[in-house]
Amino acid sequence: MAKVTKLSGFPEWLPEGRIAELRVLDTARRVFELHGFGSLETRSVEPVEQMQRKGEIDKEVYLLRRMQAAEGESDAGLGLHFDLTVPFARYVLENAGHLEFPFRRYQIQESWRGERPQEGRFREFTQADIDVIDRDALAFHHDVEMAVVMATLLAELPIPRAIVQVNNRKLAEGFFTGVGADDPAAVLRNVDKLDKIGAAKVAALLVSDAGLSVESADACLQLAAIRTPDTSFVERVRALGVRNDLLDEGLDELAQVVSSASRHLPGAIVADLRIARGLDYYTGTVYETQLVGFESFGSIASGGRYDSLATDGRQSYPGVGISLGVTRLVSALLGRDLVTVSRSVPSAVLVAVVDEADRPGSDAVAHVLRARGIPCEVAPRADKFGKQIRHADRRGIPYVWFPDDAGHSVKDIRSGEQQPADPASWNPPTEDLYPTVRPTAHLEESP
Amino acid sequence: MAKVTKLSGFPEWLPEGRIAELRVLDTARRVFELHGFGSLETRSVEPVEQMQRKGEIDKEVYLLRRMQAAEGESDAGLGLHFDLTVPFARYVLENAGHLEFPFRRYQIQESWRGERPQEGRFREFTQADIDVIDRDALAFHHDVEMAVVMATLLAELPIPRAIVQVNNRKLAEGFFTGVGADDPAAVLRNVDKLDKIGAAKVAALLVSDAGLSVESADACLQLAAIRTPDTSFVERVRALGVRNDLLDEGLDELAQVVSSASRHLPGAIVADLRIARGLDYYTGTVYETQLVGFESFGSIASGGRYDSLATDGRQSYPGVGISLGVTRLVSALLGRDLVTVSRSVPSAVLVAVVDEADRPGSDAVAHVLRARGIPCEVAPRADKFGKQIRHADRRGIPYVWFPDDAGHSVKDIRSGEQQPADPASWNPPTEDLYPTVRPTAHLEESP
Repeated sequence: MAKVTKLSGFPEWLPEGRIAELRVLDTARRVFELHGFGSLETRSVEPVEQMQRKGEIDKEVYLLRRMQAAEGESDAGLGLHFDLTVPFARYVLENAGHLEFPFRRYQIQESWRGERPQEGRFREFTQADIDVIDRDALAFHHDVEMAVVMATLLAELPIPRAIVQVNNRKLAEGFFTGVGADDPAAVLRNVDKLDKIGAAKVAALLVSDAGLSVESADACLQLAAIRTPDTSFVERVRALGVRNDLLDEGLDELAQVVSSASRHLPGAIVADLRIARGLDYYTGTVYETQLVGFESFGSIASGGRYDSLATDGRQSYPGVGISLGVTRLVSALLGRDLVTVSRSVPSAVLVAVVDEADRPGSDAVAHVLRARGIPCEVAPRADKFGKQIRHADRRGIPYVWFPDDAGHSVKDIRSGEQQPADPASWNPPTEDLYPTVRPTAHLEESP
Repeated sequence: MAKVTKLSGFPEWLPEGRIAELRVLDTARRVFELHGFGSLETRSVEPVEQMQRKGEIDKEVYLLRRMQAAEGESDAGLGLHFDLTVPFARYVLENAGHLEFPFRRYQIQESWRGERPQEGRFREFTQADIDVIDRDALAFHHDVEMAVVMATLLAELPIPRAIVQVNNRKLAEGFFTGVGADDPAAVLRNVDKLDKIGAAKVAALLVSDAGLSVESADACLQLAAIRTPDTSFVERVRALGVRNDLLDEGLDELAQVVSSASRHLPGAIVADLRIARGLDYYTGTVYETQLVGFESFGSIASGGRYDSLATDGRQSYPGVGISLGVTRLVSALLGRDLVTVSRSVPSAVLVAVVDEADRPGSDAVAHVLRARGIPCEVAPRADKFGKQIRHADRRGIPYVWFPDDAGHSVKDIRSGEQQPADPASWNPPTEDLYPTVRPTAHLEESP
């Protein structure tokens, strides 16, 4: 299945690739709705000045301009949103009087960033987000819930094993302060580069850029190396000998997430003290997610707690959320040939046409099958049956229906078996009803 | 259910409104897939020069610019697409070697136009399109199919009765030529204004702008007044005494659509010779759709045959398609209070929390219910039961589950009835499992 990306950074899939993507989107929606998250969509545009306040990525916003715009028009100053969290926070502020809190929503939509395209980074991409926002205070158990719902979703997808890595900004900031950092954000920013430039260069930057002593820089790197599937990270942090109240709070929160989450899904959620997240609106728990054996894809599901993103001055609306990078994930699945799609069309059946004058008879068969929930299409031309069967075969349609006044029959074109059949009662096996998306064999065979 | 449109032309729905929209989108997808249309999404952007060649609406395109764009960047010259047909035609040309023809796809996506917002016209809007494109020649029966699939979809929605109105460009152009028009396109453009400015002004324009005689202008208006639920329009056109080969071809095509379509869905599809469609890429059949009693909404589903939109010089890819204006339809349904949504969240059950320490027990009940496909959420706080019940009531959640070591029970908070229940076997009635979207009573009562 070849990827088609003729305009760099704006991916488009072939029909089979889209079926794989739909499988991800449908599973996300089902899992989210089972957990009581309601669907929401926000407009694609936001006022630019609002987006600029929300992080470091203001440089990457796409601005809009009407081709025939007049000076001072109302849509001047609009840009395409770069994520779904900032628009959601704005939506909650705007509609607070009409919403019930805590407000749980999922949002499956595209975002845009004018970044240099590279593997796993796109200029247009789809994300599937869940968030919970409450008024004044948001109960901490939602920080656990986000990790559990995302891990549940990932376990249902036909993808390599995923591990949700959790950290806590309070833990990190408290620790950095505890080792003497004047600017904990600068430390965090440099620790976030570990994957890209390695420990030695980060250590040097922590001294030169963040003003730490060599010993403190070393302690920060030791902290970032801690990763445990249980709460044993607490002891390992304590062993580094740093004392700070905010650190204690962060340790306690992270321990709650890891212990509660691993009760639900053992091994799927770990504490990983290297996780930083670039966006600066996170204030507590942060999440990233790796596919085991495919760590180079980068995080496929990320998010965190944001206590101050949505505030109108009088009232604040703290939230927590996590976002599945659908385009990144699907691009990886298709690019590495990790999934196999059973056919390129929804049709389970091609209804043959004996003669163009008999098309209404074929249409009638299709009508009866569709009324019973069986996707089908009618052959576009009354070609010889061999050609009509090849039409089905090229699309992966498993069955060809032959209408005949003397009695209908249906052929499984994979086995060649042909049986008499009545459109009012015949059913394909359940696994043939819709296209399937399965891990490609070489993936299943790996340990 | 109040509409929330704080940025003019960029509508956003409250949770219940989004559930109504999802009902439209889900029904569209199901009907399209049952008819063998595969899902496709194209990127949101197209090169502007390509869009400019496709119609009169080039003035309304939104151009993109990176906030920190350098001179001559590759994303200069990109605009947001203004419909889904032009991007689809481009996609087919680009990927022709990977597609099977005739290629059937549905596409549910947003488009953008920098128009002045007004009722039923938005700057950002969702459409649900189906199209069939073939190589060299596309069988005419697909022109029938488009009308039938759209009428089938509309009949399944909780909306007022819809009528698909069909016309044919060849019929119109042949007739206009037959009455002596030098520029049939100018006649068509003016006839297209009938709804907006009325017959008298159009008649005057046909003389002053399109250069027709008064008699010819009158004949064109008589043509536009013809509307029949069957093929009797053919006789009425003949009675106007105009003879032209292209007119004959158009009459024959339109008669095929109306007679075949009314066999499938009597009364849902009519010949209406007033229909013109503004976009200039249509070459034969054209469709519009009105809601009976709500004609002022404008057309909610439009499209047509385009024989020359997709061509790479050597090969042409004729197509036919129809597009449901989802945002226009949903905006009308919500704005006129035509639908009633049963609840604002997907949850059928709120699992109560007896005590914060017992949250894991409530989580376990929710886990069992979800595994059996029952959407639920766990109460966010261990409030008094009365308060937890009000939490459910405000969202329209019909059931509250009370976990108890001595035995669970579930309460229907509408009737107050409370019953012992086992999470491993209890089921809500089917109609309570998901939110429902039904025509509001006053609509059902109307004749």
